[in-house]
Amino acid sequence: MLRLYFTPNTCALASHIALEQAGAGYESVRIDFAKGEQRKPAYLAINPKGRVPALVTERGVLTETPALLIYIAQRFPAAQLAPLDDPFALAEAQAFNSYLCSTVHIAHAHRMRGYRWADEASSHADMQRVVPRSVAEGFAPIEQGMLRGPWVLGGAWSVCDAYLFTLAQWLEADGVDTAKLPRVMDHRRRMAALPAVQRALAAEA
Amino acid sequence: MLRLYFTPNTCALASHIALEQAGAGYESVRIDFAKGEQRKPAYLAINPKGRVPALVTERGVLTETPALLIYIAQRFPAAQLAPLDDPFALAEAQAFNSYLCSTVHIAHAHRMRGYRWADEASSHADMQRVVPRSVAEGFAPIEQGMLRGPWVLGGAWSVCDAYLFTLAQWLEADGVDTAKLPRVMDHRRRMAALPAVQRALAAEA
Repeated sequence: MLRLYFTPNTCALASHIALEQAGAGYESVRIDFAKGEQRKPAYLAINPKGRVPALVTERGVLTETPALLIYIAQRFPAAQLAPLDDPFALAEAQAFNSYLCSTVHIAHAHRMRGYRWADEASSHADMQRVVPRSVAEGFAPIEQGMLRGPWVLGGAWSVCDAYLFTLAQWLEADGVDTAKLPRVMDHRRRMAALPAVQRALAAEA
Repeated sequence: MLRLYFTPNTCALASHIALEQAGAGYESVRIDFAKGEQRKPAYLAINPKGRVPALVTERGVLTETPALLIYIAQRFPAAQLAPLDDPFALAEAQAFNSYLCSTVHIAHAHRMRGYRWADEASSHADMQRVVPRSVAEGFAPIEQGMLRGPWVLGGAWSVCDAYLFTLAQWLEADGVDTAKLPRVMDHRRRMAALPAVQRALAAEA
């Protein structure tokens, strides 16, 4: 049985949605950041990096959202969650996921996690002021074409959609003008209507 | 014929090494950051994100190092550059690559690219002061076990080794005390001795 460690309102939602869309048998365990549970020995024994998500499998623990998403797709191939049989198309999916992880999520992280990269309160305040711009810049190429429509990779739903939906949850809190992202917002609405997404959100609520 | 767009002293080296280790037929094209070539129309037509690496294939352009590394491994399976036939082992490789991309490389990027996340000179100076610590913290779990030895994934060389070697090039410039990373430094020395690595470095020199 797979076990997903998650915290609400984090990127763990992407893996949660992928597991639901796969029809996977799994259990989910909430890690409470407000209580600092991610830094306690019980969780560090599972993921020494002290982050979510972590996916416990019968062979060991996996971390990092882009890795989990392709793993879930490969473990449940009948669900067709990624173009597994086409290396070029898979690389496009991976490029999308990596961009979300290392550009878009990182821009967002400067709003609340600035202490990772700077010490001074003035620097953190500066970072927070830049977030609406940097996150908007991160979403701009998605709006302009990386999101092909109706789904990220075109006609077929994939784990990329789960990941995009997850990061798009944060747009308003990041101060981004969503009126400039009509395609991203339409994608978010259509995603929110999927039963798998509703089940994942309900499990985290 | 594959065509790799690279800039010396960037993460493009990882893909360069992977192509050499694969015995791939490819050409490489240098993009000069000092001349701002990554922002000129000729290159933006290839990669609108204005970053390196970009890999031109007969089906289109691929970007993002973690995506390129697995693509190269899949395109040249005989070279055995990743555990392609084992979804769990592949996910471990992907988790390693994603960690390098979104944690280690991002920590490093705050030394020279702080303008992405803050506007004030004082913030950029603060970020630069933190880099020795944040990059060292990024390498610590690699030193302590993620690098299994002799190679990242254990006995078999993989694209993860190319990526780790690439980011380990920056340790001294980032002000990290390499004496505290003996296993990473030993890996770097063994990598530097590989013919494929020497060819990639020579091509970028």
